[in-house]
Amino acid sequence: MPQLRQDPIAGYWVALSKDRSKRPFDFHRTPVQPKSGIICPFCPGNESLTPSELLSYPSENGSGWRLRVFPNKYPAIEAHEVIVESPLHTSSFGELPQSAAVDLLAAVRDRIFDLKQIPELEYVQFFKNNGPGSGASLSHPHSQLMALPVVPGQVQLELDGSLQHYEEHGHCIFCDLIELECGQRERVIFENQHVLVVAPYAPRFGFETWVIPRQHQSHFEMSHAEVLGAVGEALHKIARRLEAVLDDPPYNFLLHTAPLQEPAMPYYHWHIEILPRMSGVGGYEFGTGCYINAILPEESAGVLRGDA
Amino acid sequence: MPQLRQDPIAGYWVALSKDRSKRPFDFHRTPVQPKSGIICPFCPGNESLTPSELLSYPSENGSGWRLRVFPNKYPAIEAHEVIVESPLHTSSFGELPQSAAVDLLAAVRDRIFDLKQIPELEYVQFFKNNGPGSGASLSHPHSQLMALPVVPGQVQLELDGSLQHYEEHGHCIFCDLIELECGQRERVIFENQHVLVVAPYAPRFGFETWVIPRQHQSHFEMSHAEVLGAVGEALHKIARRLEAVLDDPPYNFLLHTAPLQEPAMPYYHWHIEILPRMSGVGGYEFGTGCYINAILPEESAGVLRGDA
Repeated sequence: MPQLRQDPIAGYWVALSKDRSKRPFDFHRTPVQPKSGIICPFCPGNESLTPSELLSYPSENGSGWRLRVFPNKYPAIEAHEVIVESPLHTSSFGELPQSAAVDLLAAVRDRIFDLKQIPELEYVQFFKNNGPGSGASLSHPHSQLMALPVVPGQVQLELDGSLQHYEEHGHCIFCDLIELECGQRERVIFENQHVLVVAPYAPRFGFETWVIPRQHQSHFEMSHAEVLGAVGEALHKIARRLEAVLDDPPYNFLLHTAPLQEPAMPYYHWHIEILPRMSGVGGYEFGTGCYINAILPEESAGVLRGDA
Repeated sequence: MPQLRQDPIAGYWVALSKDRSKRPFDFHRTPVQPKSGIICPFCPGNESLTPSELLSYPSENGSGWRLRVFPNKYPAIEAHEVIVESPLHTSSFGELPQSAAVDLLAAVRDRIFDLKQIPELEYVQFFKNNGPGSGASLSHPHSQLMALPVVPGQVQLELDGSLQHYEEHGHCIFCDLIELECGQRERVIFENQHVLVVAPYAPRFGFETWVIPRQHQSHFEMSHAEVLGAVGEALHKIARRLEAVLDDPPYNFLLHTAPLQEPAMPYYHWHIEILPRMSGVGGYEFGTGCYINAILPEESAGVLRGDA
């Protein structure tokens, strides 16, 4: 029997239905291959194909870059940036060295500090689309930042839900969630001193995973380098596991953080959500804002932990 | 320069950026073909492959059915139904005869009347996923109904936005929108005595199209057969145009209607949204609830009207 669960923060409903995984498909699903013979604008040597750099980290031998940030050549909004987190043209983020994930979060922090100086900007959305079917158009691993003059609706929903919990219970809902999950353990995938990685109670997608810093902090850019480093390592570890277990699925990373111009919030707690995209988003999801998922988080956590 | 527009009803933001259509893709996009040699469970003769009918309309010669409704064999939630709106196994809804679209809306009304008798059910979402990439798993044209014991978040957002407009202006926001669009005309695609078809001011997807009955009515199931027939005809007409202009794109239909157990609402107005799905939904959209679209509605309306 399908189970209906509600995300305690943003309030969306998820129908968890194991039966859904048994349904037949009569459309061919052919793997998408990168085109050959295309000049990659994100590879070293092709820097002239992109706009000028906003930020770069030098390579260890000093002869080039190990990370570059530049304005998106085809901007969706006024401040739209691309982060190429490694010169390596691998087929996925998980194939990069772990240090690229650590560099990536350091660059996001650096860029947010810069963008925060522009008083018109209210929010920066950091995200990664990894692989065809995730929204990505180019295969060289890269991430994006979009800065908005408004607080987006989905972010406001989370802020409102978190504030309500704080007003009712006097605690941050994410700090409470960390305590609850570490006590129950069935949805914990990985943890260390700085980070908890869990399958959320109401996952929108199979194998959805959240990476949450243990220390309370509403603004991503205000976390210490040590915490960001630990989050980068956890993100890379989970990406590798997802890629191994699900055979290179398309997925998205999303940073959820507090609005740029707001002071520190006791009720909100930044985190990163990883959404594997093996199943499509159809009319039901668009109409309702609810989701259907065939995989219980208690199961996906076990698989990602490597339980037998 | 990209333009930011806000949907006046549900409040989501859309970045309209013509530049986005120029960006390069290095993933191959191969057309998806239906598998051959698969027995279609929705074709006449294969009725035993589906659960028993909840409703059927007989064919004109009385020897079979022209429309069938049955429970989904792989339900996502407790009340999940499939509507096969024609015995014809065409590759898209637009290739069916217009009468199938009229039958489809009549069947939705009949099923909603039945589901409304169950006091635990608060909302019925009617939708269609047409083609691979739309969320569809089977190619024989079909639609779905999901009945929920809660009012979904996306629906509540629209209800709240509509109520706010009503309280401020004393009118239904959709009735006002009909008047505004018919005055301006630049986003009107098609109209007749009962129906207005427009490209919305803030479209989430290129060629997004809304079909709105002229007569104020909050509940789909309370509209007269004459109105539903006219909406079915308009829906079919627009589906054919979209399929012709965009070369058989994947798309979704979504019904937006008032919650089942609520009395008639002066501030809400049912309508059907058509979302073509040529562009992916990525990390940005999931993180923010905002959208990026390269095609202005003033342009898509012109193309769908057939302007030179």
